[in-house]
Amino acid sequence: MTKLEQVQNWTEKQGLDFTYLSDPKTIQYLTGFFSDPVERVLALVIFPDKEPFMFAPALEVEAIKDTGFSYDVYGYLDHENPWAIIAEHVKERNANPKNAGLEMNNLTISRLNELQAELDVSFNTDVTDFMNSMRLIKTPDEIEKLDAAGREADYAFQKGFEAVKAGKPESAVMAELEYALKLKGVMEMSFDTLVQAGAHAAEPHGATCSNLIKNNEMVLFDLGTVHQGYISDSSRTVAVGKLSDKQKDIYNVCLDAQLTAMNYVKPGVTAESVDKVARDIIDKAGYGKYFIHRLGHGMGMSEHEFPSIMEGNKMELKPGMCFSIEPGIYVPGFAGVRIEDCVHVTENGCEPFTHTPKELKYL
Amino acid sequence: MTKLEQVQNWTEKQGLDFTYLSDPKTIQYLTGFFSDPVERVLALVIFPDKEPFMFAPALEVEAIKDTGFSYDVYGYLDHENPWAIIAEHVKERNANPKNAGLEMNNLTISRLNELQAELDVSFNTDVTDFMNSMRLIKTPDEIEKLDAAGREADYAFQKGFEAVKAGKPESAVMAELEYALKLKGVMEMSFDTLVQAGAHAAEPHGATCSNLIKNNEMVLFDLGTVHQGYISDSSRTVAVGKLSDKQKDIYNVCLDAQLTAMNYVKPGVTAESVDKVARDIIDKAGYGKYFIHRLGHGMGMSEHEFPSIMEGNKMELKPGMCFSIEPGIYVPGFAGVRIEDCVHVTENGCEPFTHTPKELKYL
Repeated sequence: MTKLEQVQNWTEKQGLDFTYLSDPKTIQYLTGFFSDPVERVLALVIFPDKEPFMFAPALEVEAIKDTGFSYDVYGYLDHENPWAIIAEHVKERNANPKNAGLEMNNLTISRLNELQAELDVSFNTDVTDFMNSMRLIKTPDEIEKLDAAGREADYAFQKGFEAVKAGKPESAVMAELEYALKLKGVMEMSFDTLVQAGAHAAEPHGATCSNLIKNNEMVLFDLGTVHQGYISDSSRTVAVGKLSDKQKDIYNVCLDAQLTAMNYVKPGVTAESVDKVARDIIDKAGYGKYFIHRLGHGMGMSEHEFPSIMEGNKMELKPGMCFSIEPGIYVPGFAGVRIEDCVHVTENGCEPFTHTPKELKYL
Repeated sequence: MTKLEQVQNWTEKQGLDFTYLSDPKTIQYLTGFFSDPVERVLALVIFPDKEPFMFAPALEVEAIKDTGFSYDVYGYLDHENPWAIIAEHVKERNANPKNAGLEMNNLTISRLNELQAELDVSFNTDVTDFMNSMRLIKTPDEIEKLDAAGREADYAFQKGFEAVKAGKPESAVMAELEYALKLKGVMEMSFDTLVQAGAHAAEPHGATCSNLIKNNEMVLFDLGTVHQGYISDSSRTVAVGKLSDKQKDIYNVCLDAQLTAMNYVKPGVTAESVDKVARDIIDKAGYGKYFIHRLGHGMGMSEHEFPSIMEGNKMELKPGMCFSIEPGIYVPGFAGVRIEDCVHVTENGCEPFTHTPKELKYL
C-alpha cells in the first residue's frame, strides 16, 4: 500500500469525507514534492473513495507534476481566493461534505477560519498523531537517504577540522566548511551551522560569530545537511592546543554518556530510559546541572520528529526509529562540550548515521 | 511610547485581560530577541495594567535577559508542561482572566487547544491586523538596518558576478558569493540564494543546482541577507557572452517595467496600481503570460510582510512602507529574467535599499 493509500484508508476508517493536509513536510513525505509556501497556500486533499488532489501557487504547479504526482494539481494566482478554489474542488468530489480531518499541529487558527468560511464542515478530527506514527518508523529507503546525509556531515567535519586554527574567527571556519560542501553539490544545511569556541560553546543556543578561536580551548561543531529531503545532524567538540584537566574531564564525561547511551539503545527499551542512562553518568560526575536539555530528538525529514528522548517519554523503541543522542555539558564562562550522533534502531541495537571519530581530537 | 506599550494600550482598548504573542518575528519586533523555538514554546504575554512577561525554553532565558528585556522571563524544561506554567504566571497577574487576544495567523489549532485546557478564557480577538499595521510603517531606525542589509546584498552581487564563468556550475557561483559574505561577517541569508542560468531561470521557484553556465545565456541571481533581524532581497540578471535579440528584448522589457514602477511609486498611489504599471508594460510587449506572479511583497524583518503589491490591493502607499518591485519574464525552455529592488516609500517617491546597476551587464 502506498503512503497516500494509507492516509486514504485512515480517512475512510475515521468516517471522514476528506483529510486536508497542509504541513509541507507531510506533503513531501506523501508525494516527494517539497516547497515551503510561507504565506501562500499549499495543500494535499485526500478522499476515502475519490482521487486526491494537490493545490498550490500557480508558480509551483509544473514542479509538482515533474515530481511524478499523477493526480490533479490546481494552481491559483496571488489575487485569487485560494480557499474558494479549494472548496470548489472538494465539492466536485463530494457535493455535501460534513466531516474532515486536518493537521491541528500545523494549521493556524486564521487558516481554519478561512477554510470554514468556504466549507460548512466540522474540522474536528486531528490527523497529526496518525502522520507522526507513519513517519516514526523509517523504511529502508529512508534509512539510505539518512545514511547519505550522514556521510555529508562527516565530510563537513573533516573540512571544518582542517579549517580550525587559533586566531581565526568561528565564522571563517563555518564559511570554509560550507563552501567545501557547496562545491561538492550539497546545497542545503538542515539548520544554521554552529562553530563555537571556548566559553562561547557554553551557550547551547548561541550562534556562530566573529569570536576568535584561542589556543588551549575547545571548539564545538553542530551541523547537518539535507539529502533528498532527509537530514543529518551531528556534533563534535575538538581541542586546539593543550587542555586543562577540567576541560578534559568534561569532555570525557560527555563522551562516556554518549557512548553508554548508544550502547544501551535496542528495541524494547523506553525513550526516557536512554535519557536516564546518559544523565546518570553526567550527574554522578557532578555536572548534572550543566546538562540542561533532553538527550535527543527524533529526526528524519527534520530534526523535530518523534521519538523525543527525554524524561517522561515511556515510548518503547522499535527498529526503524531514528533520533539524536546528544549529551552536552555547558559550564558558563568556561567551556561547552556536546557530542552527537543520530542513530536508527536496528534489531539488536542501533547504528549511527555519522562516523567521525569521537575520541578527543587535538588540532 | 514604546512598541510594547502600544500593544499594552491596544490590549486595554480591546477590553482584554491579556494578549498572547507567539510569532517569533513579532517577539523580535517588540523585544529585540529572536529565536525560532520550532516545537518548543516561546511567548510574550502582555497585560493592560501589569508588567508583561516572556516565556521560553530554559536554554533561552539567559539570552533573552542579555538582549535587555527588563521584565520577568520564565523558562521551562523539556519534560515540563509549558502551558500549565504559562497559565500559572498569567493567573499571578490576573486571578480570573476572561478574554484574551492572540495571533491567529501564527498559533496552530493544537496550541490553542493546549492553552484553553489550562486557561478557561475566550481567545476570540485577533491581534494579527494590529501587529501588521504596527510593522507596516518602518521607523528611521528600521530603515537604517534595511539599508545596511541592502549594502550586503550589493556586495553579494559584486562577488557573484566576479564568480560567473561559462562552464562553471551555478552552485559554485553561489558557494563563492556566500563564502565571501561569511568572511565579511554576514552569517545569515534571508532565503536560499538563487543562481539560475539559461532556461533554468525560467523556473521562478526552482533552486540553484549543479547545471553548468553556458556561453550566450543569462544568469539570474536572487539573494538577500539578514542584518540585525532585518533583511535584504534583490535580483539581478546578467549576460554571459553574447545575447540574441530576443534575450535582449526580454531583459529590456523587464527593466523598463521595473524602472517605470519604481518611478511611479509615491505616497497616495495604491499598491495595485504599482503592479498594473509594470504589468501593462510587459503585457504590451507581448510577454504578459510569462509574468506569473505579483509585482512585489512587503518586507522588513521578513520577505512576507505588507503591503502586497498586487491586483486587488487597494491600500494607499505611505512613507515608511517597504516592499519589493520585482517584475519577471519567464519563457519556458528559453530564458528567465527578474530584476528586483526593495524600496521604502519617501515623502516624494521611493528609495531602493540596493544600488547594483541594472543596465544589462555582460560578463
